[in-house]
Amino acid sequence: MSEPQAVSPAVSPDLVARAAALDAADGLAPLRGLFALNEGSVYLDGNSLGALPRHVPERIRDVMTRQWGELGIRSWTEGGWWTAPERIGDRIAPLVGAGPGQIVVGDSTSVNVFKAVVAAVRLADGDADEGGDAGADGGQERTELLVDATTFPTDGYIARSAARMTGRRIVPLDPAELPGALGPRTAAVLINHVDFRTGRLHDLPGITAAAHAAGALAVWDLCHSAGALPVGLDEHGVDLAVGCTYKYLNGGPGSPAFLYVAERHQGRFDSPLPGWNAHADPFAMAPGFVAADGAVRGRVGTPDILSMLALDAALDVWESVRMADVRAKSLALTDFFLECVTAYAPPGRVSSLTPAAHAERGSQVALRCPEAPAVMEALIARGVVGDLRRPDLLRFGFTPLYVGFADAERAARVLGEVLAGVPGEVSGEEPPGDR
Amino acid sequence: MSEPQAVSPAVSPDLVARAAALDAADGLAPLRGLFALNEGSVYLDGNSLGALPRHVPERIRDVMTRQWGELGIRSWTEGGWWTAPERIGDRIAPLVGAGPGQIVVGDSTSVNVFKAVVAAVRLADGDADEGGDAGADGGQERTELLVDATTFPTDGYIARSAARMTGRRIVPLDPAELPGALGPRTAAVLINHVDFRTGRLHDLPGITAAAHAAGALAVWDLCHSAGALPVGLDEHGVDLAVGCTYKYLNGGPGSPAFLYVAERHQGRFDSPLPGWNAHADPFAMAPGFVAADGAVRGRVGTPDILSMLALDAALDVWESVRMADVRAKSLALTDFFLECVTAYAPPGRVSSLTPAAHAERGSQVALRCPEAPAVMEALIARGVVGDLRRPDLLRFGFTPLYVGFADAERAARVLGEVLAGVPGEVSGEEPPGDR
Repeated sequence: MSEPQAVSPAVSPDLVARAAALDAADGLAPLRGLFALNEGSVYLDGNSLGALPRHVPERIRDVMTRQWGELGIRSWTEGGWWTAPERIGDRIAPLVGAGPGQIVVGDSTSVNVFKAVVAAVRLADGDADEGGDAGADGGQERTELLVDATTFPTDGYIARSAARMTGRRIVPLDPAELPGALGPRTAAVLINHVDFRTGRLHDLPGITAAAHAAGALAVWDLCHSAGALPVGLDEHGVDLAVGCTYKYLNGGPGSPAFLYVAERHQGRFDSPLPGWNAHADPFAMAPGFVAADGAVRGRVGTPDILSMLALDAALDVWESVRMADVRAKSLALTDFFLECVTAYAPPGRVSSLTPAAHAERGSQVALRCPEAPAVMEALIARGVVGDLRRPDLLRFGFTPLYVGFADAERAARVLGEVLAGVPGEVSGEEPPGDR
Repeated sequence: MSEPQAVSPAVSPDLVARAAALDAADGLAPLRGLFALNEGSVYLDGNSLGALPRHVPERIRDVMTRQWGELGIRSWTEGGWWTAPERIGDRIAPLVGAGPGQIVVGDSTSVNVFKAVVAAVRLADGDADEGGDAGADGGQERTELLVDATTFPTDGYIARSAARMTGRRIVPLDPAELPGALGPRTAAVLINHVDFRTGRLHDLPGITAAAHAAGALAVWDLCHSAGALPVGLDEHGVDLAVGCTYKYLNGGPGSPAFLYVAERHQGRFDSPLPGWNAHADPFAMAPGFVAADGAVRGRVGTPDILSMLALDAALDVWESVRMADVRAKSLALTDFFLECVTAYAPPGRVSSLTPAAHAERGSQVALRCPEAPAVMEALIARGVVGDLRRPDLLRFGFTPLYVGFADAERAARVLGEVLAGVPGEVSGEEPPGDR
């Protein structure tokens, strides 16, 4: 493949020097050495697949050869396999601001969305039964499920199925419209904490409080915030939440998701997937289902041990990390990257969809570019690994544990070079750094 | 721990010699070398956790270090991660008598039971809508879901949830009563191919045909038959099936389950868990759900790659194996084990729950023994690894790929020794070999 005709922007000595200074002052910089990263490339796709922590393969070799191969079924008890879902949940808990006993790991995000949404609707039903509203309103039912229409689509698909199977109605809307749409008919809201396309961070405390004021439950999808920024599940009174572990938590491809059930709801958490792992006494193998106490009733079937223990190992990198430091670095990285893009990209070729306001920004930058497919292909060929969201989005994830400021400068510079070599239209939009 | 006071039964030279001759004539015997087995122990728990195929850890090391660590997200496309669920499904297909394109791998057995039962009810609804029965019968609805009451309990728990969420009624019954209970109200039946306690093999062709004659669908749970005996899903016209891959398929602890959707039902297979992986164009990330063609619509969320590719590697051991040979050896092993138990066990101390008739026997032997907990503990301490099903069952799985006849003789002999050393009551039941 011949190189595109590149008209390289001049390297900015100022940006290079600032990147070096920022990296030198970065308290998280030493963590980079814990990860396997390709020499000579910049990995900005940790919001899709987190990088491999170097120690994980050896841990999994032990899980396979010793725990499975030698100890065999004894590992279910003696090796802690059976309790891994709640034990690993308790390791994730402090990263999302949850006390212990409220998170279990297992199944995919989609399956957990189903559990959470159905359970939320049932909890809302119960609340209506117990309160006086239903009677006063003449049998008023909480018939509506408000769903972030800009969400990662699986949440919408699954919420629609949950609504169909619980006799509710889906109301898709923009998160900005959510507070106005809440009312006595609302059973629950399902919303992404950070939009997977734009990187916009939604107002978790405000929307949760608004849902509660309307008597509804708030279900949050933390796929793009868990491990990227402080979430504060307990502090903000979130009811239920789900999240992914293969992005900012580096659990490995398709590693199991997690489910948060606030302690106050656990006694009435009524799972649509009451598998034997959710039973109070699973090894009684009794014909009748009696739900376990606590978040454990969010479990379903036999836990997927290889993937689960890879995640367990991967979580070791968080041991001495404060999420406030992660957030500070994430915002500094995305600020700096946007500044570098403004400096290096030919004017008018890309525009940022990622909010400039820190309070509205997750840990990624999304650039709109009509030539995005060709541009991302060329970026990856030059070792700058982001990803494409069709039709026209360049997505760059900034994972503070292993991405530095020199990476951000280099990525923006290579983007400038690639854009110079890929023919394209100049839009009238303002450059990203000004938004 | 002091040894129990053992009064060893005399070794039977005849049984030892016959075991040696049977092992020498066993065409599957060379496969044993493919598995990591503890020297000096007899592993009869492959019906709970299949043994580790020796080559799997190295394959998973490659998945972690090269595919995840070096190639990263490129592995989703170039490395075949994305299509693993259907590709590995097609590898399992010949082992259960299914043509290609009908099996997907992913999620736990429990989650797949939910998909299959809900989909079956919806298919039955559709059949009623299309046929004349519903109208002629004055709005007759297929309101009942018949469920094997002796099944592994998770199936019953999940079926109850599926019934609740589709407005149906669960009818738990003994599999023997199933044919008589089928009728115009039956939407579907859910039954285990092999009972997890007794090892009884149910009549898949007969029950499936009876369900069809009643206009109902048959959903089979193959957890204890996939990889243990010929199933013949296509031949016998099974509608939907689920199965486990960590028992006789040796996929590793908690490895993902599989779902079979007969080709004729795929166009109307309506999943209660329509995650983005089931979408016709998942990477369009469109707000509306359009189901993919084929069994792929049984997928839900992002596949769990480490566990899935461990299973993929584990399936290599089946390459030159004919299921008819597996079945023949399995029956010979369980026959021989029962004979050895009769010879070695003190009279009246154990009784077999496993049917003597080959047509009714799976690939395990279940012995009832009032002292089962103490006996199994002592067996395991002496290197004979079976498992306990509370309160009084000793369960021994015979996995023909790596268990031999000398293992069966030794296990029965050690059982005899242990029983001699554990005080117990003698029951009036006949010895196992005579049943």
